[in-house]
Amino acid sequence: MSNSFGKAFRITTWGESHGDAVGVVIDGCPPGLPINLEDIQRELDRRRPGQSEISTQRKEGDKAEILSGVFEGLSLGTPISISVWNTDAKGKDYEHMKSVYRPSHADYTYQAKYGIRNWKGGGRASARETIGRVAAGAIAKKFLLAEYGTEIVAFVKRISHIESNIGHEEITLEGIESNMARCPDQDAAVAMIEAVKTARKNGDSLGGVVEAFATNVPVGIGEPVFDKLDADLAKAMLSLPACKGFEVGSGFDGTYSTGSQHNDPFYMSEGTVRTKTNNSGGIQGGISNGESIILRAAFKPTATIMSSQDTVDVFGNDVELQGRGRHDPCVLPRAVPIVESMFALVLCDHVIRHRGQTGK
Amino acid sequence: MSNSFGKAFRITTWGESHGDAVGVVIDGCPPGLPINLEDIQRELDRRRPGQSEISTQRKEGDKAEILSGVFEGLSLGTPISISVWNTDAKGKDYEHMKSVYRPSHADYTYQAKYGIRNWKGGGRASARETIGRVAAGAIAKKFLLAEYGTEIVAFVKRISHIESNIGHEEITLEGIESNMARCPDQDAAVAMIEAVKTARKNGDSLGGVVEAFATNVPVGIGEPVFDKLDADLAKAMLSLPACKGFEVGSGFDGTYSTGSQHNDPFYMSEGTVRTKTNNSGGIQGGISNGESIILRAAFKPTATIMSSQDTVDVFGNDVELQGRGRHDPCVLPRAVPIVESMFALVLCDHVIRHRGQTGK
Amino acid sequence: MSNSFGKAFRITTWGESHGDAVGVVIDGCPPGLPINLEDIQRELDRRRPGQSEISTQRKEGDKAEILSGVFEGLSLGTPISISVWNTDAKGKDYEHMKSVYRPSHADYTYQAKYGIRNWKGGGRASARETIGRVAAGAIAKKFLLAEYGTEIVAFVKRISHIESNIGHEEITLEGIESNMARCPDQDAAVAMIEAVKTARKNGDSLGGVVEAFATNVPVGIGEPVFDKLDADLAKAMLSLPACKGFEVGSGFDGTYSTGSQHNDPFYMSEGTVRTKTNNSGGIQGGISNGESIILRAAFKPTATIMSSQDTVDVFGNDVELQGRGRHDPCVLPRAVPIVESMFALVLCDHVIRHRGQTGK
Amino acid sequence: MSNSFGKAFRITTWGESHGDAVGVVIDGCPPGLPINLEDIQRELDRRRPGQSEISTQRKEGDKAEILSGVFEGLSLGTPISISVWNTDAKGKDYEHMKSVYRPSHADYTYQAKYGIRNWKGGGRASARETIGRVAAGAIAKKFLLAEYGTEIVAFVKRISHIESNIGHEEITLEGIESNMARCPDQDAAVAMIEAVKTARKNGDSLGGVVEAFATNVPVGIGEPVFDKLDADLAKAMLSLPACKGFEVGSGFDGTYSTGSQHNDPFYMSEGTVRTKTNNSGGIQGGISNGESIILRAAFKPTATIMSSQDTVDVFGNDVELQGRGRHDPCVLPRAVPIVESMFALVLCDHVIRHRGQTGK
Repeated sequence: MSNSFGKAFRITTWGESHGDAVGVVIDGCPPGLPINLEDIQRELDRRRPGQSEISTQRKEGDKAEILSGVFEGLSLGTPISISVWNTDAKGKDYEHMKSVYRPSHADYTYQAKYGIRNWKGGGRASARETIGRVAAGAIAKKFLLAEYGTEIVAFVKRISHIESNIGHEEITLEGIESNMARCPDQDAAVAMIEAVKTARKNGDSLGGVVEAFATNVPVGIGEPVFDKLDADLAKAMLSLPACKGFEVGSGFDGTYSTGSQHNDPFYMSEGTVRTKTNNSGGIQGGISNGESIILRAAFKPTATIMSSQDTVDVFGNDVELQGRGRHDPCVLPRAVPIVESMFALVLCDHVIRHRGQTGK
Repeated sequence: MSNSFGKAFRITTWGESHGDAVGVVIDGCPPGLPINLEDIQRELDRRRPGQSEISTQRKEGDKAEILSGVFEGLSLGTPISISVWNTDAKGKDYEHMKSVYRPSHADYTYQAKYGIRNWKGGGRASARETIGRVAAGAIAKKFLLAEYGTEIVAFVKRISHIESNIGHEEITLEGIESNMARCPDQDAAVAMIEAVKTARKNGDSLGGVVEAFATNVPVGIGEPVFDKLDADLAKAMLSLPACKGFEVGSGFDGTYSTGSQHNDPFYMSEGTVRTKTNNSGGIQGGISNGESIILRAAFKPTATIMSSQDTVDVFGNDVELQGRGRHDPCVLPRAVPIVESMFALVLCDHVIRHRGQTGK
Repeated sequence: MSNSFGKAFRITTWGESHGDAVGVVIDGCPPGLPINLEDIQRELDRRRPGQSEISTQRKEGDKAEILSGVFEGLSLGTPISISVWNTDAKGKDYEHMKSVYRPSHADYTYQAKYGIRNWKGGGRASARETIGRVAAGAIAKKFLLAEYGTEIVAFVKRISHIESNIGHEEITLEGIESNMARCPDQDAAVAMIEAVKTARKNGDSLGGVVEAFATNVPVGIGEPVFDKLDADLAKAMLSLPACKGFEVGSGFDGTYSTGSQHNDPFYMSEGTVRTKTNNSGGIQGGISNGESIILRAAFKPTATIMSSQDTVDVFGNDVELQGRGRHDPCVLPRAVPIVESMFALVLCDHVIRHRGQTGK
Repeated sequence: MSNSFGKAFRITTWGESHGDAVGVVIDGCPPGLPINLEDIQRELDRRRPGQSEISTQRKEGDKAEILSGVFEGLSLGTPISISVWNTDAKGKDYEHMKSVYRPSHADYTYQAKYGIRNWKGGGRASARETIGRVAAGAIAKKFLLAEYGTEIVAFVKRISHIESNIGHEEITLEGIESNMARCPDQDAAVAMIEAVKTARKNGDSLGGVVEAFATNVPVGIGEPVFDKLDADLAKAMLSLPACKGFEVGSGFDGTYSTGSQHNDPFYMSEGTVRTKTNNSGGIQGGISNGESIILRAAFKPTATIMSSQDTVDVFGNDVELQGRGRHDPCVLPRAVPIVESMFALVLCDHVIRHRGQTGK
């Protein structure tokens, strides 16, 4: 086990992809926060399947219910339980995979670990598990905005070789949401959508990179030496299905530069300490410095493809697997609200911990 | 706070760079494990300053003392306390930085967070803190090898633009340790050493990438959905000073391929499920699949440089800072045993958790 | 917050007394355990209101639903989510208490802590929260019995001055369940029931003591020095509504004896180390020694009474409160399955941790 | 394992009774708190052996060293490492017990759990482990007093049948410290001392009860439903060697009263909500209500006695054990500062958590 994330603002997710329902319990939400279903539903709608031509065609309304922790529109400080019923689960679609391990999925490792698995649609390893994270993330975002003015924006930075070339200052939520690719660079978006459609036509899939940044993050957030802000963000991202890499600030590219090029000089601006560049990505020594926090997460091409693949079955035979079922040819667009949510959950956890220890 | 890492095999590190001592308490080490000081000292010697021409010239013997938890050469199952005295602390060297924030260091963020900081040599943010991690990692490695035959090897994959080009099957500990750069590709090593010396001559610094792999990892290790093995490895790496990025398996590069190229086909080999390729890096769905676990960590160029830099002081003035003191022009070679240690700590924590939950 | 309990077998409960539902998420249940709804429902039925003349008359079926973590009758090793809908919530009954703090309830402290409270029926502080504990406890009991043959029995030891006088060796589940008081001493049970009825007639309430013991507990369970088995049991009991005291083994009475009277002499019995007496209550140094684990928990008289009481309102006025609504004149009989559940949860958590650390 | 206690103000203790040293790492101490060695040493002196005629004659100076986390007299917000060297360890005294399990000690259970034990003086199960708790408690007390004016007082309430009869309002630290028994009722103290001396003369030992209370505790402290303030206090006390029971407020005695007698009526006093009686012991629903928090902990008679006892050896033989070595004929007086420390640690942890979640 560990199906909980966070220490002070702690979420616990539950549910299998083709079970009865999926959900989350949020423990540690500060009391008195206005919470309504619409805020949560809006984010779930950004994540849900069937939302566009280039996402899986599984039809789920993903309607959230808040079962506890909210009273007369305000959080009580008690656990908030949110659940979503699975309505379009088609276990049948997976019947043929009951005894076959899909390559680069978690079928084999779950079976090896637990000696049992729910073979319908990946069970717990399905991205459907992230519904709880997104619901909780919606609340975390609301708290951060209300309390600190902190805003978090994620977008598709790259799909395969097609990259967004537009500065953070020009990026708006509307620009991102205006196309199926969730790419703020509209030209790149067109090319991305085309590429995904082609991949699907070929029974194949694509990967890419989501970038995210947070503005108005209070200075001083992050708990060295192990719960550094970037360390927790890294864990948050790598806990997502299909995520294979994480960077903060200059990331891997920064390793090609020299210290004199890479260091971010400080300067005073209206009484505030600022940096001229932001290779640090808003975090120094694991603690926020007040600049935008910038991260990137790499997502591999979807493991589910529609072509024939070599694999083995549960009886130890080499077999051939023919792809079937509904799937996303590219997870990037739907990953955007999920990345935002995990980002928000980490920040929320850390601001609460910070004010606990320092009284600020 | 959080100065503890791990849930079942849990370490707590303490100590400032120029305080009296640094150390670690290890809680959860299985009983009956043979532990001797030499195993620990060997790893500390690989980490310690002054070990070569291209590392900092601070002279520390870094002699470890085991104060508890070991009895007649065996672990007791009780906390193992290890400490190392600081003997060559030269707080004086930092006197001039008492009131100045060094760019891309943690001086400013610590001050902002806590309202106080030990300004001598970075205090808690110094890489000296990792001594405790390496001491604990030595014990974790020993446990993994004794119990599962698991071995972990890290090496310098790249410094600036100079890359090691040698396959894992050819890499040996001896090859890595045979040169100051800790690069198993001896030609690349020569070039790396040259590059670091040049950077130092210029008062500058370099970054790069450490790669690490673990062999003979039991199948089934990792705790979805949040404590996925790769998620905890990501956190472990990003918790290291100067680390800006993490990858597992194909990482960022893998996002350029398609699903049909990227998927790792399963096949049977002598009754065991294996994969033909290893883009997954030995982890699927956050759980080990028995293949080598492969990761990479990006380290930025050292923030301490010997040239003049713009910055601010604690009184809110723009000032110029001239570099002084002892430092590493490139942290990569010394990062190798640290990366290995964190890798071992994560695996050790997870095998214990796995056998707890499953009884295997 | 903390609405989670346990480290390796971890439960998270949620839900307000008069909200939509209450429930629990169990994280860390070992895979492959047979789980059926009947096992859970049986325990919930022992806990539910309206079960007898001497319990509250609130009518709740307390029907459990398992929403995840179980597949084809077996646990998956993934989180088990169980929920129970509130069907007889009568928020109206509490309307008159919206602005009045009931003496010795948690109304005032919740309001003071959170600045808000669900004033309907005590919200989260209601014993209704324990439904999730009992559902989880049913699973924990099943695991302990299946894996180790461990059995846990709780019973009403005392109500007010009426005490059960019957040895553990004579106590059976049937004997306990055969009367409304859940007291295995049938004569005492009659007197207890009479006393409770009289208290109710007087608009008053009674307290008492639940005793519990576990047999066939494996030797070696418990994690010193802080998570001693008795320390975690103490916390488990004191986390229950109305619990004011805890004892293990000889408890408070044992403090009147001398060491020579109190020590439990060891002896060998068929190759096993046993003790002649059991003042230790089956635990020495925080670790089980193989003897029965014995504990007692003290429950105060129910705070809800039907007579007039002095108190204050939320506006800061001294007022008089007249009791109304449905309530238990004595919580002891319904506390029995709850104590058993907490007992089971602690043992389950500890056996998993123990086999993790020691591989046994 | 678990050698850590607390979530936000977290201590980790280490060290065996006859190892090289014992100590503690405190993680989460708020920054900027004045800390000096004297504050810590004063408390250690109250705990240390050899302090009076009725304590063990082991001679330990118990001199504390602060190795990290304090800079120029103020806490840094980083881990505070404190260690105490063992100087009068006489492992030899225990040679004869190497292969014999002392009755009602933890020798057998440690051996059974870990398959190995440090048989010198009880190793980790020795009360010597509490040195770290007391050192950390001294800092916790300082924080509570400085930040909230909270004061904690513990005293010997009863030894065997001799009870202190003096109200809290008359109790002073001076009164408690003025006699070897740490009993504020001077007449009772004389009788207690006499009783302990007699017990020692007889080679026997006595048990008793420590009572403690905290004043000026902020309203709203405690984290339902599992980390209720009294639940964490119960765990804290039961984690102490020899502790067999815990009560808060009216405790076990309160179970004999009726609800109408037991409820604490609220009233307004100078704009503050107060209770007329304090059967709740300052805690309602697991949250502090501003009244004094009152608890009692039961300590069994010391297991080490000087008379002959039946037991078994590690080879499985029934043997007779003759008592030897230095020991306390009654742990109560030395338990006083330990109980205070655990009390302070719990409160400190909870005020930090509370201000984290609520921002107050």
